[in-house]
Amino acid sequence: MAKPNKSPRPKAIAPKGFRDYFGTEVTERKAMLDRIAEVYHLYGFEALETSAVETVEALGKFLPDVDRPNEGVFAWQEDDADWVALRYDMTAPLARVAAQYRQDLPSPYRRFAMGPVWRNEKPGPGRFRQFYQCDADTVGAPSVAADAEICAMLSDTLEAVGIARGDYIIRVNNRKVLDGVLEAAGLHDTDEFAAVRGIVLRTIDKHDKFGDAGVTALLGEGRKDDSGDFTDGAGLGDLQIKAILGFVNAHNAVDSRLAQQASAIRDTNPKAADLLYTARDYASPVFSGQHALRATAGAVWNENVLNYLNEIVGESSIGFEGVQELRAIHELLKAQGYSADRIRIDPSVVRGLGYYTGPVYEAELTFEVTDEKGRVREFGSVAGGGRYDDLVKRFTGQAVPATGMSIGVDRLLAALRATGRIGSEAEGPVVVTVMDKSRMADYMQMVTELRQAGIRAEVYLGNPKNFGNQLKYADKRNSPVAIIQGGDEQERDVVQIKDLILGTKLAQSASLEEWKDRPNQFEVPRGDLVAKVREIIESYS
Amino acid sequence: MAKPNKSPRPKAIAPKGFRDYFGTEVTERKAMLDRIAEVYHLYGFEALETSAVETVEALGKFLPDVDRPNEGVFAWQEDDADWVALRYDMTAPLARVAAQYRQDLPSPYRRFAMGPVWRNEKPGPGRFRQFYQCDADTVGAPSVAADAEICAMLSDTLEAVGIARGDYIIRVNNRKVLDGVLEAAGLHDTDEFAAVRGIVLRTIDKHDKFGDAGVTALLGEGRKDDSGDFTDGAGLGDLQIKAILGFVNAHNAVDSRLAQQASAIRDTNPKAADLLYTARDYASPVFSGQHALRATAGAVWNENVLNYLNEIVGESSIGFEGVQELRAIHELLKAQGYSADRIRIDPSVVRGLGYYTGPVYEAELTFEVTDEKGRVREFGSVAGGGRYDDLVKRFTGQAVPATGMSIGVDRLLAALRATGRIGSEAEGPVVVTVMDKSRMADYMQMVTELRQAGIRAEVYLGNPKNFGNQLKYADKRNSPVAIIQGGDEQERDVVQIKDLILGTKLAQSASLEEWKDRPNQFEVPRGDLVAKVREIIESYS
Repeated sequence: MAKPNKSPRPKAIAPKGFRDYFGTEVTERKAMLDRIAEVYHLYGFEALETSAVETVEALGKFLPDVDRPNEGVFAWQEDDADWVALRYDMTAPLARVAAQYRQDLPSPYRRFAMGPVWRNEKPGPGRFRQFYQCDADTVGAPSVAADAEICAMLSDTLEAVGIARGDYIIRVNNRKVLDGVLEAAGLHDTDEFAAVRGIVLRTIDKHDKFGDAGVTALLGEGRKDDSGDFTDGAGLGDLQIKAILGFVNAHNAVDSRLAQQASAIRDTNPKAADLLYTARDYASPVFSGQHALRATAGAVWNENVLNYLNEIVGESSIGFEGVQELRAIHELLKAQGYSADRIRIDPSVVRGLGYYTGPVYEAELTFEVTDEKGRVREFGSVAGGGRYDDLVKRFTGQAVPATGMSIGVDRLLAALRATGRIGSEAEGPVVVTVMDKSRMADYMQMVTELRQAGIRAEVYLGNPKNFGNQLKYADKRNSPVAIIQGGDEQERDVVQIKDLILGTKLAQSASLEEWKDRPNQFEVPRGDLVAKVREIIESYS
Repeated sequence: MAKPNKSPRPKAIAPKGFRDYFGTEVTERKAMLDRIAEVYHLYGFEALETSAVETVEALGKFLPDVDRPNEGVFAWQEDDADWVALRYDMTAPLARVAAQYRQDLPSPYRRFAMGPVWRNEKPGPGRFRQFYQCDADTVGAPSVAADAEICAMLSDTLEAVGIARGDYIIRVNNRKVLDGVLEAAGLHDTDEFAAVRGIVLRTIDKHDKFGDAGVTALLGEGRKDDSGDFTDGAGLGDLQIKAILGFVNAHNAVDSRLAQQASAIRDTNPKAADLLYTARDYASPVFSGQHALRATAGAVWNENVLNYLNEIVGESSIGFEGVQELRAIHELLKAQGYSADRIRIDPSVVRGLGYYTGPVYEAELTFEVTDEKGRVREFGSVAGGGRYDDLVKRFTGQAVPATGMSIGVDRLLAALRATGRIGSEAEGPVVVTVMDKSRMADYMQMVTELRQAGIRAEVYLGNPKNFGNQLKYADKRNSPVAIIQGGDEQERDVVQIKDLILGTKLAQSASLEEWKDRPNQFEVPRGDLVAKVREIIESYS
């Protein structure tokens, strides 16, 4: 009788929403992060690595408040009753560190952090519960020069990893401008309007999704969605709603103005009119003009946007301050050569406006890709950030100015793949096959020589009986070359070199002229092994 | 009346047993891991990065079996009732991956993994609950050539990170030799002796701690410790105990034999006797002979050890196999130039013998350090590993041969610090000070020029009012140079360059001859800024 199976075999599977990364998936990401770290370092930023685990108390109430503190994060209770959790971003640990070590850290403190973060969310296609973040922040710098520096660094970073100038734009907005618009609409930053301002901020964030009509409804009487569900509105009046939409749609408003101006002077000053038309094009997603033109037209655009914002904030001092800050960032960056071809003042950046307290920025890749549904679209956002001056306050009671950004590591990697900058199959090692098990020392001597010459190499360590399996293995490893030495070759002190790349090329196109006289397997003296292998590898690189 | 403090401020502190790593602590570790990864890659190993989280089911019963599955690991229950946990090493995830992707991975599969692991243990001084591991394993290679390869790679790795040849030794043992000794002592690998063999394995592991007397007691009648507590013994007879101690103390036995042999031939063949004496020295911890001598003497030592082991395993076929494997590893490595000066056959490697199923290896650093209590001692072990052929079996039912090693990242870093290879203070950025807040664009232009020339630089972004604070900041940042440009300098189109390294040197020793004619602050034309700063930095590097 068979024994009852008391402990069934465990399932060999990663937990739901977690995945494994193999070979080049790991090394390509690492190479990208290395390049980013070089730029950060050049800018004076220091590495910081906090542990994956933080107290729930230090992380704060960042996520929906429910019975258990681990909604949205992975949390568990320690034996001594403290709750701890895996970090869900790099900002919360920075806040804790900035407070914990405030006596010892230099001020301002520029730091960067790279590593995994965890979200206890429902996983979906391409949506994982562990992913990389790559942040840089400056804590303790009140001046917008710090914000400008982050924008310049973001620009340098994108170019360092391989995004060409002209293929990205860094869009800058300012929460204070929105505050000014709200003040101008009578919604002052007082307890009386706190609730309604909150609704407005959340609603603006959804402009991408609901459009003007949806936002108008939500700011006014309320909105009924497709399923018939009704969401209460903020109860604002028409003029208030118009003012807020005037901010969100600043892009369109400025565009119309430029069109009108251009039209008015087209006959009298066609050159100036052209520049205005180009400025309109500049701010459209698919502008493909040259850099110089981009910078000139962009400067016109930015200037017009700043003027427009100055108007819509009316008499609001916070609004005026916000526009001044945008202008300062624009000027500081321009002085360093980061012109409008790379940096755009852009009030349509609304993501995170509810969270940030000053300048907000977002890096967008402007080249087109074809998505999984075959639609051509702009690649879109790969990084973002802003100023959040309340970072350390919850720990110490003292406000500490801070500004910083986070790069979406997976998005940026996808962008580099989409542009062909990375993703070609990595070259495998040279494989030394085993013809005679008892001569393993000879084969290992060959790989040692190759490695000492800096050539990636390995001896076949599986069961050598079936030679076909050894070549299949070399194929699976994407090996450029296989080395063969049987008894006959050993006696004659030679080795067979099999050019596997050529083999593949010939298999793909047997008549390929350029390869036809080149043998894909040949014999060389044992002493020429390293030189010959190097020659083959270099011929393909 | 003051409001009651409803939500007290959270404590800004990392959870117990977790720590933060700043600046060079991060970058030095990264640089070391990068060098290790280069060697692994050269050997044909592929990167693998699994997520931090595994199912408790996949991790297995690796730790004391108690009520909760999270004793020893950090574990929590998912909403759907599955328990998941943070990985506690890199081997358990490898086993899961090797089983999950067995159809797709090349076989043999050489992989390396680097990253943090977590242990839910009581933290202590220098003992943390998150730390780095750095592993390399070959799955699916039955031949000891795979073990030899790991040893060679470990040797190359140590030298690549900066441990000099002669400052380390890789000690190799084999579980099968111990199995042979047990068989020779009548303790066969059958159900009958399973329990007592288990006790023997656990007892041998404690030889370092309890010595011969303690091990003799534990293998025999039992042992009373200092507190009076009694531990039951394995109940072995004197001859059995003697045989087992003969294995554990093989080192001493071989040493005595060499002494006897040398003494016997001292007068007739003094040269050969000298070699035997040197062989004894070779295996002592503090041998400081030259490499060539080390290799020759080591070969004599290894040969004598192998002969001795052959004797003590008697008629046992598993024991004979074990010795043959050690000999094969020795020969394979020697043929590749990894002689006895780097690899030593050493039966006193007992750590992990209960876990591994074949060859076991351990890398020991042989130079001396002074510990925190002022005692001079050998640095000791920094890496270890071995063959464990049951890795994948619990998932698939099929035994898969596997061998690999793990480097103690923090230990190795400590060793590099102890030898002065790393740990010198990293150079900070050039600091451009701010004399006039309204001229921020000028100062930012200076740092941009410096950065574009590859010089790490930053503008002071704190409140610029107190100039002394700016210099204190530069000092805290370990800046080599500070740049100063007030209104007067601007008018004359010059900058002041303050050589902070020289300043420190002069402060330390005002009469230092070599510096006395060098000014530590001077003026240069604005156009010479980058060239002059580079000159200063290079003069110190």
